[in-house]
Amino acid sequence: MIDLPPDLAPVPEVLAKGLGEVASLFDAHLRSDLLPVADLVAHVERYRGKMLRPALALLCGLASSEQRPALALSRAHYTIAATCEMVHMATLVHDDVLDEAEVRRRGRTINALQGNEAAVMLGDYLIAGAFHLCSLLDDPRPARTIGSVSMAMCAGELLQLSNRENLSLDLGTYLEILERKTGALIGAACELGALASGAPVTTADALRRYGLLLGVAFQVQDDLLDLLGDERTVGKSVGRDAGKGKITLPMILALREAPPDARIAIIAAYDAARAEPTGDAPRRLAALLDECSAVEHSRAFAAGHVDRALTELNALKPGPAREALRLLGRAVINRAF
Amino acid sequence: MIDLPPDLAPVPEVLAKGLGEVASLFDAHLRSDLLPVADLVAHVERYRGKMLRPALALLCGLASSEQRPALALSRAHYTIAATCEMVHMATLVHDDVLDEAEVRRRGRTINALQGNEAAVMLGDYLIAGAFHLCSLLDDPRPARTIGSVSMAMCAGELLQLSNRENLSLDLGTYLEILERKTGALIGAACELGALASGAPVTTADALRRYGLLLGVAFQVQDDLLDLLGDERTVGKSVGRDAGKGKITLPMILALREAPPDARIAIIAAYDAARAEPTGDAPRRLAALLDECSAVEHSRAFAAGHVDRALTELNALKPGPAREALRLLGRAVINRAF
Repeated sequence: MIDLPPDLAPVPEVLAKGLGEVASLFDAHLRSDLLPVADLVAHVERYRGKMLRPALALLCGLASSEQRPALALSRAHYTIAATCEMVHMATLVHDDVLDEAEVRRRGRTINALQGNEAAVMLGDYLIAGAFHLCSLLDDPRPARTIGSVSMAMCAGELLQLSNRENLSLDLGTYLEILERKTGALIGAACELGALASGAPVTTADALRRYGLLLGVAFQVQDDLLDLLGDERTVGKSVGRDAGKGKITLPMILALREAPPDARIAIIAAYDAARAEPTGDAPRRLAALLDECSAVEHSRAFAAGHVDRALTELNALKPGPAREALRLLGRAVINRAF
Repeated sequence: MIDLPPDLAPVPEVLAKGLGEVASLFDAHLRSDLLPVADLVAHVERYRGKMLRPALALLCGLASSEQRPALALSRAHYTIAATCEMVHMATLVHDDVLDEAEVRRRGRTINALQGNEAAVMLGDYLIAGAFHLCSLLDDPRPARTIGSVSMAMCAGELLQLSNRENLSLDLGTYLEILERKTGALIGAACELGALASGAPVTTADALRRYGLLLGVAFQVQDDLLDLLGDERTVGKSVGRDAGKGKITLPMILALREAPPDARIAIIAAYDAARAEPTGDAPRRLAALLDECSAVEHSRAFAAGHVDRALTELNALKPGPAREALRLLGRAVINRAF
């Protein structure tokens, strides 16, 4: 997600090599003797993106280790990193079920039924693969944490789903959705990476909080990019949140802070974007949210979470790995994709 | 699934009490402080049916134990039984995604999109719950087995999916689908139930094979009920397999054994049932498959698997729990629901 500066050597190199190990382990664990399974798994590669969770697991492992960087990472770190990425990938694949459903609503796919089922099953295969992978570790803690975090993620998604089109969604519930849906897994990646280096529980806990706070900031930035981003830069279609009835932070803050007249205009723009997500309506909504400072306040909210996250890094000894975690934390909200 | 005769006392009573413990553990583990999650979990209860997997896990635990029946079952047995039922339930919920898609194709649901997503997420919540539950055990083997079996189940489903409408599907591939999709989890329930009683690996292996063979027979019987069963007795809609393009054993045997003329008629009837699954076509297909003895041969195939399964029970010492496993084995193919 970021290019670490060369003065953090040897961390950038160790990280790059480690991420290569994670990718190999990921692929090897999902390999199947059945052709249709192997074919689908090959498609999963197109989802592989920022590798944020593996990078955090490895960097937290490096930063918590008593060893020198070149010797600090073990198979346990790669296993934890690959497990977290597999869980994340499963959520992306299952999100596709929704996307395919949308395409189907416009009647485009010929074999939508089979496509839908394959996406559900492939996602399940990834979840099962993730649990199986981390169950192979000697330490039982990763399997327990990943199991409990996965339950929290689903609960967060269901909470979000039940608040679709709920214009009264309050900040507390919104934050709870983000912490469960996005923060919990990123927190686990950091915590488990540290534990695999033999870090004390207090350090692992601080890094879990770092990851949790960063995850919330990451998701707010994602929502801002959906609202304001340029499709070609973001790399996926934008303006989808309003179309899906998803209420995100700028909307919550706007409805809370804007004067009555502006609120009416915002709700009308939201309704229009909901009804016609492919037209100009999402852009009009974005402009209104920007005008009433809701976008600016959302950015400040994300930045505040990053600041709090970076404070947790004080639990670590100073060094290039801690500095890399600091830079990665800032990058989460300074990204345009 | 069966009423065990009173002369097997105290096994029927111990089993009934044990299944009560499993149900409590199941509910407690899925409990959520979030209302939308709790609501959906409550709906899952309507899926709870035969409790075949928990019953097998507990009976294998009883049959392998050195303790007397009233003291033989522990929290480990209940955990394994609840885990297997949760994985099974997750597959049922994810099957619903397909069913809801069908209903949507006929344009009936208003909020089909949200329904679809909730089913995917609820299934994921159940899978995560299952893994988390068994990761809490001291013994790491259940988590590893459940992880690997879950991967096999998804692979089996994907293999079946890729063979939709494949009229050249051979018996070997069909059997592989059934072993992975249905047999593997039932085998794991039996194996892990025995291991939780401290059974030697050879006994646990024999019971795994018992469960695997029984699972295949169970699935063949399920397919026969879909073809021939009475909707009111079966308790779910019948004739759906052909409509979904699923090629099952009677069809495979008929295409292999029937003379050319009959084959042409069977393929025509299959095409008609595929195109119009709600009309008379599935009944006509069933009649043709019955005429050419494919139904009879399918029953013999299932019965042969049950016979082989029961042979594996010789690994156990004689007694009422072993006798209960024998009766349950026979019941798998002598059921009308």
